[in-house]
Amino acid sequence: MPARYLNFRCSVPWLILLLQTLFLLLSLFDLTGVSDIYSPSEFYPEFQDVNHIVIFGFGFFLVVLRRYGFSSMGFNFLLVVLGVQCSVLVEECLVFLRAQQSGPGMNSLAKAMVSVTAVVISTGAVLGKANPVQLIVMTLVELIFFYVSRFINRIFLQVPEPLSLMHVHLFGAYFGLAVTSCFPDFPPALDKNRSSPTSELFSMLGTVFVWVFWPSFNSILADSKRKAVLNTYLALAVSAVGAFMLSALTSKDGKFRMAHIHSAALAGGVAVSLTAHSIQHPWIAMILGLLGSVVTILGSHCLQRCFHPALRLQDTSGVHFTFGLPAVLGAVAAVVLCVVEEGIEKQWNDLSSLGYLVFVDLGAFCQTICTALITGLITGLILNIKLFKAVHVSKYFDDQFYWEVSFKMISD
Amino acid sequence: MPARYLNFRCSVPWLILLLQTLFLLLSLFDLTGVSDIYSPSEFYPEFQDVNHIVIFGFGFFLVVLRRYGFSSMGFNFLLVVLGVQCSVLVEECLVFLRAQQSGPGMNSLAKAMVSVTAVVISTGAVLGKANPVQLIVMTLVELIFFYVSRFINRIFLQVPEPLSLMHVHLFGAYFGLAVTSCFPDFPPALDKNRSSPTSELFSMLGTVFVWVFWPSFNSILADSKRKAVLNTYLALAVSAVGAFMLSALTSKDGKFRMAHIHSAALAGGVAVSLTAHSIQHPWIAMILGLLGSVVTILGSHCLQRCFHPALRLQDTSGVHFTFGLPAVLGAVAAVVLCVVEEGIEKQWNDLSSLGYLVFVDLGAFCQTICTALITGLITGLILNIKLFKAVHVSKYFDDQFYWEVSFKMISD
Amino acid sequence: MPARYLNFRCSVPWLILLLQTLFLLLSLFDLTGVSDIYSPSEFYPEFQDVNHIVIFGFGFFLVVLRRYGFSSMGFNFLLVVLGVQCSVLVEECLVFLRAQQSGPGMNSLAKAMVSVTAVVISTGAVLGKANPVQLIVMTLVELIFFYVSRFINRIFLQVPEPLSLMHVHLFGAYFGLAVTSCFPDFPPALDKNRSSPTSELFSMLGTVFVWVFWPSFNSILADSKRKAVLNTYLALAVSAVGAFMLSALTSKDGKFRMAHIHSAALAGGVAVSLTAHSIQHPWIAMILGLLGSVVTILGSHCLQRCFHPALRLQDTSGVHFTFGLPAVLGAVAAVVLCVVEEGIEKQWNDLSSLGYLVFVDLGAFCQTICTALITGLITGLILNIKLFKAVHVSKYFDDQFYWEVSFKMISD
Repeated sequence: MPARYLNFRCSVPWLILLLQTLFLLLSLFDLTGVSDIYSPSEFYPEFQDVNHIVIFGFGFFLVVLRRYGFSSMGFNFLLVVLGVQCSVLVEECLVFLRAQQSGPGMNSLAKAMVSVTAVVISTGAVLGKANPVQLIVMTLVELIFFYVSRFINRIFLQVPEPLSLMHVHLFGAYFGLAVTSCFPDFPPALDKNRSSPTSELFSMLGTVFVWVFWPSFNSILADSKRKAVLNTYLALAVSAVGAFMLSALTSKDGKFRMAHIHSAALAGGVAVSLTAHSIQHPWIAMILGLLGSVVTILGSHCLQRCFHPALRLQDTSGVHFTFGLPAVLGAVAAVVLCVVEEGIEKQWNDLSSLGYLVFVDLGAFCQTICTALITGLITGLILNIKLFKAVHVSKYFDDQFYWEVSFKMISD
Repeated sequence: MPARYLNFRCSVPWLILLLQTLFLLLSLFDLTGVSDIYSPSEFYPEFQDVNHIVIFGFGFFLVVLRRYGFSSMGFNFLLVVLGVQCSVLVEECLVFLRAQQSGPGMNSLAKAMVSVTAVVISTGAVLGKANPVQLIVMTLVELIFFYVSRFINRIFLQVPEPLSLMHVHLFGAYFGLAVTSCFPDFPPALDKNRSSPTSELFSMLGTVFVWVFWPSFNSILADSKRKAVLNTYLALAVSAVGAFMLSALTSKDGKFRMAHIHSAALAGGVAVSLTAHSIQHPWIAMILGLLGSVVTILGSHCLQRCFHPALRLQDTSGVHFTFGLPAVLGAVAAVVLCVVEEGIEKQWNDLSSLGYLVFVDLGAFCQTICTALITGLITGLILNIKLFKAVHVSKYFDDQFYWEVSFKMISD
Repeated sequence: MPARYLNFRCSVPWLILLLQTLFLLLSLFDLTGVSDIYSPSEFYPEFQDVNHIVIFGFGFFLVVLRRYGFSSMGFNFLLVVLGVQCSVLVEECLVFLRAQQSGPGMNSLAKAMVSVTAVVISTGAVLGKANPVQLIVMTLVELIFFYVSRFINRIFLQVPEPLSLMHVHLFGAYFGLAVTSCFPDFPPALDKNRSSPTSELFSMLGTVFVWVFWPSFNSILADSKRKAVLNTYLALAVSAVGAFMLSALTSKDGKFRMAHIHSAALAGGVAVSLTAHSIQHPWIAMILGLLGSVVTILGSHCLQRCFHPALRLQDTSGVHFTFGLPAVLGAVAAVVLCVVEEGIEKQWNDLSSLGYLVFVDLGAFCQTICTALITGLITGLILNIKLFKAVHVSKYFDDQFYWEVSFKMISD
């Protein structure tokens, strides 16, 4: 093995050590000043559910490639535990600097978990192509930019805190796409980026986990939790039904395709993420869920055949249609629903205030997507400079490159 | 591939689309009329547990066949999400028609989840033999008949609502058995309906999930939740112990058999499902748990050697002894316990009121089992008419018939 | 197969039957006297989490050996359900004898679950070497000795009840080590005690489960639950980061090793188990988490190369460095933190009271570890007498010896 790879590998632990020391020092100087970090909070079960989604659910959700299971699962774990600490500290720092009152400790941890989902989604786009150093740098940069984007939304567009966090899917998907566009292509003949039946079963296991706990994800920060839970549940159920329907309709011979089920079953949850707490009638959530799965499956065909090859995009686990398109649908739906509701309430008299609402909502959406694309592109370009020793295409999608796939004895 | 199969496959998505449109329309006309659908409820963690049991636990519980993992998991998912919507709407419709006050939204969803368990259990009996169209039709018919059976129990026999739902195991198992008796036999020489070590490990994973969350299942609708949880936990623990004991006793060489552990570990939970909320002394629950595992393992030997071959029944995942027999035991135990308790309270004076109790309990039991068998048989006969294009025996237990087992690239 | 093995196998079910009958009889005479067994308790979600950790998490955590998956999972299940009953009854008996007021029913079940963790950890040390009879006897003996050790700590050293339970990792690890030292060695050339990629993925699945639910484990009996949750979460996050860092640093070529991640990711949770409820500043928990992973990974190298071969110890799943060393670290940290906190409070004036604190804490630690080692050694010696028919070395690590690895049809 050439010294170049040894070099790269040796830099991983030192980078992690550096970051962890930094986090520890920051927490020493920073968290001690915050006295109410242990204030009570009542949402422990929901918090555990979100924890489970992010670590376990997405970890196994990404185990699609037959020779990349350890890395999918393991790197997701590493990035989440680094990202949560980073996210908590960024928030606490800013709270400290602006002398604002802090939220309760568990609340700040919950917000960090939700933010980290952006990283997890972006990881899916570069799955098997980025090395750990690149992934760690991407995590830090993405969390900071996501914080900046949320900050703009909150301060300039008056988006409430919980809603600003729900742009996480949109940001994560487009950031990841922009990053992956900067990586070199792998030849389509390569057989390592395929799935095997066992890896698809593990991936299904992860998907079902995410599916079951998704109502907690959408409701953890919402004001009217019950509404959010019920609407999310119904949207998820309808989008799972839609996934089976459209998978059979669009595939050859009318067979189901597992990859469709993986992505479209979750589309409903993503599509209602911005509106779950405010939808008044369950059928609206159900229709959004159905539209989510339609957008996902038709999108997956269009994107993979036309759009991605044209742009030379290679989106390994399909985050564009799994999270990106339903999030766009959700953002549009949020605008429409908000306008219709306000309009009916005010009997379509006060059109200027309606226009302002549309402007704010669309503004937040456009700002998020643009920030994601631009910062993602910059990050992608930076990640491919020589310093980060990008992996050669022939080493893509291979556990053996990162892990001691040990068939040795576990104990002496 | 003959056009006949293509035809059948093309009918699946249209059937799903039809149903989903129907559900959407119904929810449009119906759920909007119910104003208190968002009333508060306090049992979100238990609800998540039941959700997890039904989707994840039973999904993997059914992954026993080595070439039928995708279908076991996937079709269970599809049937549950369809069934829950159907069940919610049936209930809401009837609430609407009878101008009754509706239960809270989450409560109605929880009841739907519990009802859908009947479908999941029945699916186990026809696992690998029914095609998706047949399964979907079975789901709808079974849910409606289960609702009718519960309605009779509630109105004519004054069985309380939560108890009427706990007949779900009995109904599901015998409905499934009656349906499977109408399907053509597969030759015993066929090697596709075997398990592999990995599939048994996945199935064990599902079983353990169901086991851990079962106390939530028995307590979600009960009045005295703590009692229900504790009794169910103890019954489950004893029946797991009994499963290991009897598995070693009844098998050759004193080895354990995984299939025994799968079925008998859950028997305790099924056996106390009707009585968990009312048992006063933990040792009664423990004895019921032990009897449950005895009935299951001895039953599995008797049924598989004598009864099933005689009746030409082929119960793929053994729902008769896993859920049917313990449920019968539980129903009998409920009668005995109720009589003894009432008898002691009234010092065995008021024998006619005791007789009435026995009549009501036994009546509900007999009514449920008869309805299940008769409607199951009719459903089975209907499912095997030409319209539904039953699968040929040679295609049984095969994922490749329904799924694109793709070894192609996931992203192009 | 020689009659000797048949004999041994036939004794397993009878032993289980004997124990279960004993438990039933005890519960008949004992639990009925306790009237408040159904008193309310509020911690059902945490209880479910601990239940999940012990049954599911540790069950799959132990699935590391490629030919021992059924036994790892299955025997863990059997020992837990036996151990919980045993533990509940031992406690209720003593409550009865000392005419003390009993804790609530769920509380006593929760304590039993936590105690059983000692057995689960010890099982890891003798994984694949002990037969079921030996494991069952070990379970009973260990639970009784753990109760005795806790009793001494509670009565003579005034350790509060929840803290005395948190010595469970220390006791379990050293008891298991002492037991395994009495078993004959297996030749290092044997290839059965290796892992395979699938078994490591299942093991990772179990580890992640334990990791996610660990905050519930540390907080279930604590007084200030939120603090315990937050500190444990941060310690776990840092120790997971540390695991990746040190794994890459200490292995050849800078690759990650899955076994390191398994053990070191949990080290943080073990290291703060005694102090999670009382740590005032999050950075202390974070540093403890980091130290935990350092101790685990450096320990695993030192122990496996020098210490274990010298003592002829064979610790199959590495419980010494996974649970033993972090628990020692946690105990030392508890003393230091307690002294520093008290010292600052009293401005280092009342040194004799500080000395008393140190004496009590160190006393409890030394008493626990000594009791574990001595009783473990005795248990190990007893387990290897002829009566228990120890398995021959050539049958180690083999599912086929205990399970009907059936490739027959599941239903006839």
